Amino acid sequence: MTDPTDAPLHEPDVLEAADQSTSLDEDNRLLPGFVDQVCEALDAGDDEAAYDLVEPLHPADIADLFELVERDYRGPLARAITDLLGADVLTELNDYVRDDVIDALPAAQVAELAGQLETDDAVAIIEEMEEEDQRAVLAELEPADRAAIVDALSFPEESAGRLMQRDLVAVPEHMNVGQLIDYLREHADLTTEFWEIFIVDPQHRPVGTCQLSWILRTPRHIALTDVMKRDQTLIPTDMDQEEVALRFQKYALISAAVVDGAGRLVGQITVDDIIHIVQEEAGEDIFRLSGAGDGDINEPIRETYKTRVRWLIANLGTALVASSVIGFFGGAIEQMVALAVLMPIVAGVGGNAGTQTLAVTVRALATNQLTESNTRRAILREMRIALMNGATIALIAGTATALWFHDIHLGLVIAAAMQTNILLAGLAGVVIPVVLEKFDQDPAVASSIFVTMTTDSMGFLAFLGLAVASGLVSL
Amino acid sequence: MTDPTDAPLHEPDVLEAADQSTSLDEDNRLLPGFVDQVCEALDAGDDEAAYDLVEPLHPADIADLFELVERDYRGPLARAITDLLGADVLTELNDYVRDDVIDALPAAQVAELAGQLETDDAVAIIEEMEEEDQRAVLAELEPADRAAIVDALSFPEESAGRLMQRDLVAVPEHMNVGQLIDYLREHADLTTEFWEIFIVDPQHRPVGTCQLSWILRTPRHIALTDVMKRDQTLIPTDMDQEEVALRFQKYALISAAVVDGAGRLVGQITVDDIIHIVQEEAGEDIFRLSGAGDGDINEPIRETYKTRVRWLIANLGTALVASSVIGFFGGAIEQMVALAVLMPIVAGVGGNAGTQTLAVTVRALATNQLTESNTRRAILREMRIALMNGATIALIAGTATALWFHDIHLGLVIAAAMQTNILLAGLAGVVIPVVLEKFDQDPAVASSIFVTMTTDSMGFLAFLGLAVASGLVSL
Repeated sequence: MTDPTDAPLHEPDVLEAADQSTSLDEDNRLLPGFVDQVCEALDAGDDEAAYDLVEPLHPADIADLFELVERDYRGPLARAITDLLGADVLTELNDYVRDDVIDALPAAQVAELAGQLETDDAVAIIEEMEEEDQRAVLAELEPADRAAIVDALSFPEESAGRLMQRDLVAVPEHMNVGQLIDYLREHADLTTEFWEIFIVDPQHRPVGTCQLSWILRTPRHIALTDVMKRDQTLIPTDMDQEEVALRFQKYALISAAVVDGAGRLVGQITVDDIIHIVQEEAGEDIFRLSGAGDGDINEPIRETYKTRVRWLIANLGTALVASSVIGFFGGAIEQMVALAVLMPIVAGVGGNAGTQTLAVTVRALATNQLTESNTRRAILREMRIALMNGATIALIAGTATALWFHDIHLGLVIAAAMQTNILLAGLAGVVIPVVLEKFDQDPAVASSIFVTMTTDSMGFLAFLGLAVASGLVSL
Repeated sequence: MTDPTDAPLHEPDVLEAADQSTSLDEDNRLLPGFVDQVCEALDAGDDEAAYDLVEPLHPADIADLFELVERDYRGPLARAITDLLGADVLTELNDYVRDDVIDALPAAQVAELAGQLETDDAVAIIEEMEEEDQRAVLAELEPADRAAIVDALSFPEESAGRLMQRDLVAVPEHMNVGQLIDYLREHADLTTEFWEIFIVDPQHRPVGTCQLSWILRTPRHIALTDVMKRDQTLIPTDMDQEEVALRFQKYALISAAVVDGAGRLVGQITVDDIIHIVQEEAGEDIFRLSGAGDGDINEPIRETYKTRVRWLIANLGTALVASSVIGFFGGAIEQMVALAVLMPIVAGVGGNAGTQTLAVTVRALATNQLTESNTRRAILREMRIALMNGATIALIAGTATALWFHDIHLGLVIAAAMQTNILLAGLAGVVIPVVLEKFDQDPAVASSIFVTMTTDSMGFLAFLGLAVASGLVSL
């Protein structure tokens, strides 16, 4: 969507290493002192000083700066350094922080920025905006840019259609290497963001792909069809972005052709967008397993509260189930208070064993390492590990209890309960996510509630139940 | 390290879509029926049938096949399809599965495979082998390949030096575009795996980098120094791979120059290797938080047992601390068994609140989103969320308890204990990982043990202590 006639092929950004040493620490993070300096300049109303400080930064560091300052500073900072607020800064910003920045700018300027972006990046920005703001920005865009963005927005969220950029290089089969190079040199309006060219048939369906290095290594008279690779990964527009990321990883792709329902080439996806998705999706699994929602430290507090408290309430519910198990054995606890002292150990260590298995299973499912073919093996594997873990923990906990309370019977009861609960934990940790996946549910979201409920309730039941059954106490 | 004189620029791998439909499901995973067929052929000793089944597969799918079959089948499968076992299959294999495959092949053949690989991939394979096998393979390698691999192995594990490939295209500053293209066409021994070329000074220090698309778009007479980008990210050989991955993400790199201590260009890292690292490092955080070690479903059971049981024993230790808190209040529990029934709720929900904060903090630290500049803000944010979560949960748990046990005093005690524990959980969940990071410890590894210990012990202490302090029971 850039107009290359009035811009060089790229910004020759001559950045001195020395400039960075005052702003970045050894891990490439902005120094707190530097961030404070910028905020002080803004506090003093000295926009020029703030501009001078920010000017030498790389766009990605400017984006970091916006994320690091307090929310109140984002608007003033955006207004102070508007010139520096290029498309490259905007695309690097966290979604919530970008909202703050965009809110501080007039719609015309946002539209100008969006017009400079690749379609996929413009869409990423516009899709996050309120409908009203979206309309204001779209109204300010050039008609061609607007059409491309509206078209992209018609695809489902997180789909390849949203992710793709429309700018790409596609050429017919009859070209040779020399003709291709001439074509690239003559057409100033082509994108420069491509790593492969696509060869298409007269119906614009991709028939092959060619790494640029192959073209550069090949004499001019050779036909493209002799250089190109015919086997290529085609991405349908409606493929989910997580699936797209898995293809890129599996086949080590740098870019891939996106095709519509009729198999026509409509866009390309490049690896720089994929790397963010891989990072995001892997992070999501952590947050879902722990009920932390999006896990975004820039999310408004109210949103974060809503997601987290829902999880805690669900957890309170499962804890009540476990409590009623204890309540059932109230009489037994009155006879022997040591049971109350020890029972959280059985539930807690069981819970941890379950979490271990769960984390491994959820990730193996997410990365396609665990499929129907090896589910049986995975369950057996977890059972064997649980048996070994259970035996070890039972031995230690049993011995320690027998010594602490001078009661071998109590030691045997806790040992048996531990072994039982760790086995159940292993089983629940692998079976629950596998079953959820089978019913097309995200195993990361719901599994851990069920696993905890199992290990808590069964931990108390096994321990208190065995104490009664073995005659240590009576009901 | 490939010898391109006897190989085309790439394998023109003409794969029909129809062939895949019998082996892959809609999510691009191998069908269980297909995996069974291969195993049956191997069982029947019919290597030819197995070969015919596997032959149409993409190398990445052959790698998946090795991961999906039972361990016992890996050796026979490797021997049956040796011809198909190219370097591209080997690099895609899980480390443990690769060990099984390599064990089944003679050293000479492993050496031949290693010789076909890029240095980084060959190193990835050889570094995982036993020292004896390493020596056997190295002895079979061509001297140049051997030197490159031995050199790479001299860098620390998980460093840029191990990760880089030595094959790259570097040219002097005085060249123009035409001379570069001629140079690329004339030198058959150059790699084809490059996405950018590096421009170096006479001391072989990088001065700029040039995307191939810029070269293809530029007339022959233009000097490279007029096309290249001077600002580039240089990676020192000893940089940790996680840090390298963060640079690639931050600056959206496709490839980057690796430099030695004197600033000389010694290799390049390409994004296809980085995407695996991003995936791995994000996954590692999940496994470390839950004490699941490497989290690899192909790891030998004994290894998995060792990592996991260590974690469970540590957990048993912290559970004992919590138990001794309960033990201290034994008399109180004897007076009112409802305390024993309810106390796991306080500890459990607190633990979950702590885990939520912990997951968010650990990921924010790992992705450089949380730095010294915004630590204070992050702590305040978590405190505010904890206050809101605590109030909500206290209200629900307090009301439910008062109704369940017909005891308003007990309801007030559990409400106050909940609020206290959730606040402590929020504080521990952000402060503990931040402090560990400050002392250069991995916050993902140790934090969760400390956080659980805090929420368990403090949960019991707050609940039972408040029950005594408020006169509900006496000590």
